[in-house]
Amino acid sequence: MASSDVFHKGTIMEKHAFSDDERAAVYKAIFNRRDVRGEFLADPVPDDVLGRVLNAAHHAPSVGFMQPWDFMVIRSMDVRKRVHELFNKAHAEATDMFPEEKQDTYRNLKLEGILESPLNLVITCDRSRTGPVVIGRTHMEWMDLYSSVCAVQNFWLAARSEGLGVGWVSIMDPDALTETLELPESVVPVAYLCVGYVSQFHEKPELEKAGWLPRMPLDEVIHFDQWGEREKDTEFLDVIRQL
Amino acid sequence: MASSDVFHKGTIMEKHAFSDDERAAVYKAIFNRRDVRGEFLADPVPDDVLGRVLNAAHHAPSVGFMQPWDFMVIRSMDVRKRVHELFNKAHAEATDMFPEEKQDTYRNLKLEGILESPLNLVITCDRSRTGPVVIGRTHMEWMDLYSSVCAVQNFWLAARSEGLGVGWVSIMDPDALTETLELPESVVPVAYLCVGYVSQFHEKPELEKAGWLPRMPLDEVIHFDQWGEREKDTEFLDVIRQL
Repeated sequence: MASSDVFHKGTIMEKHAFSDDERAAVYKAIFNRRDVRGEFLADPVPDDVLGRVLNAAHHAPSVGFMQPWDFMVIRSMDVRKRVHELFNKAHAEATDMFPEEKQDTYRNLKLEGILESPLNLVITCDRSRTGPVVIGRTHMEWMDLYSSVCAVQNFWLAARSEGLGVGWVSIMDPDALTETLELPESVVPVAYLCVGYVSQFHEKPELEKAGWLPRMPLDEVIHFDQWGEREKDTEFLDVIRQL
Repeated sequence: MASSDVFHKGTIMEKHAFSDDERAAVYKAIFNRRDVRGEFLADPVPDDVLGRVLNAAHHAPSVGFMQPWDFMVIRSMDVRKRVHELFNKAHAEATDMFPEEKQDTYRNLKLEGILESPLNLVITCDRSRTGPVVIGRTHMEWMDLYSSVCAVQNFWLAARSEGLGVGWVSIMDPDALTETLELPESVVPVAYLCVGYVSQFHEKPELEKAGWLPRMPLDEVIHFDQWGEREKDTEFLDVIRQL
C-alpha cells in the first residue's frame, strides 16, 4: 500500500481527517506526555482546568456505554499521607524482589509525587454499574476495568495539553488502598494519579534516560496476519523504519 | 480555587501548556472519537497513516517502561472470517443473558465491522517481556495489561485525527481468540480492533443515541477526599456543571 499522498486529496480520507495542525497537536500530546514523579510544583490547579481534564476522562470509550468510572479528587494531606505510607511499605518490599545488582538503582529512582503534587486523583471502576449484564462484557469480564484505563489515558493526554503533569503510582497493595479510601464493595481503584504543574517535562521517559530499559524499535512489535510473521509486508516495514 | 484566567498569563501554567488551538485539537479528538461498527468503507489504509497511528500506540505509557504490547496487523480474510465466527457464537450466547425485553434491541445492534473494515488490529500484552520483576507491577500484577490498554486509547485518538474509525470488539471467547491467533503462552489479546475510513462519525455514541443508556452527568461521578463526599467543593461543582 503506497503512501497517502496519492490518495489523500479530495477523498473520503480527507473528509474526516483533522487539519495538519490539529493532527500535529494530537501527536504532540501523545509523544510529549510523561509519567511525572519528581518535578511537581505546589501551585494549585485551577477549577476550570481540572474540570476540562476530568470531562476528557469522562468521554473515554466504555464497554456497553457503562461509564464505570468515578473520580476522587484528593487534596486532603491526611489522606495523602496515609496513601504515601502504603507506597513506602510496598516500595521497600519491591526492592528485595529485584536482582541484587539492580537494587541500588531501583532504590534511588523517584517513583511518586503523592505529597508534593497539589492534588491526587483516584480513577475507579464500579463493577456493578448499570447492572450485571453489560454489552461487550459478557465474555471478557474485565472490559469495564479497561474502560476506566481508557479514562486514565484521556485524562493524561488532556492534562499534558493543559501543561499539567500526571504520574501513575502503582506501587502499593491494592487491598490496602481500597481500605484506606473506604471504597464500597463493588468499586476497585484502577489508577492512583499525582497531578500538578511541573518545573519541566523530561524529553524522554525517565527509565529510558536512566538506562533501565531501551525503547523498542516499532518494527520489532509488528506481526502480519499471524503471530511471528514479521516480514510479509516489506513496503510497510520500510515506511515505519523511517518514522 | 478560582478560574485559570487570573493565574494563566506569564506563569508556570502557561509555560508548558499547549496553545489554545493545539489544546482544542486534543479535545476535538477526545470528544469526537467513536466506537465504529457499521460505517466502515473498504478503502485501504495507506502505509504512512497506519505507521503513524501504530507509532502513537507504541508511545503509550507502560509500567516499568515494559512496552508489553505487540501489534498484529490482520488483512487476511481467512483469519478475519475465523474471528467473525467467534463473534457470532459469543453474540448468540450473549443475547440470552439480557432481560427478555432488551433481547430484541440487543440482537439488532450492529456490534462489529470485522469483515467490512479493510484491516483488523490485535493489540496484545506479553506478560513475560523484560522478565518477571517489573517496576510498578510488583503489587498490581495487572499493570502490564493496563499499559496495553493505554496503547489502545493512543491508537484510537491518533486514528480519529487521521479520519480513521476504530471499533473495539470484545464479544468473543478470549481463549478461543488466543487459539485462533495462535498466540504464544505468555501473550494475551487485550483488544481486537476494526480499523478503516468511514462514511460518517456519529455525533454521539450509538448506545446513547439508541436510548440504551444515558450519558451520566460529570458531577455525579466526582467525590472529594473520601468516597461519597460529593458536595465539599461547591465552587468546583458550579464550574463543571457549566462545561
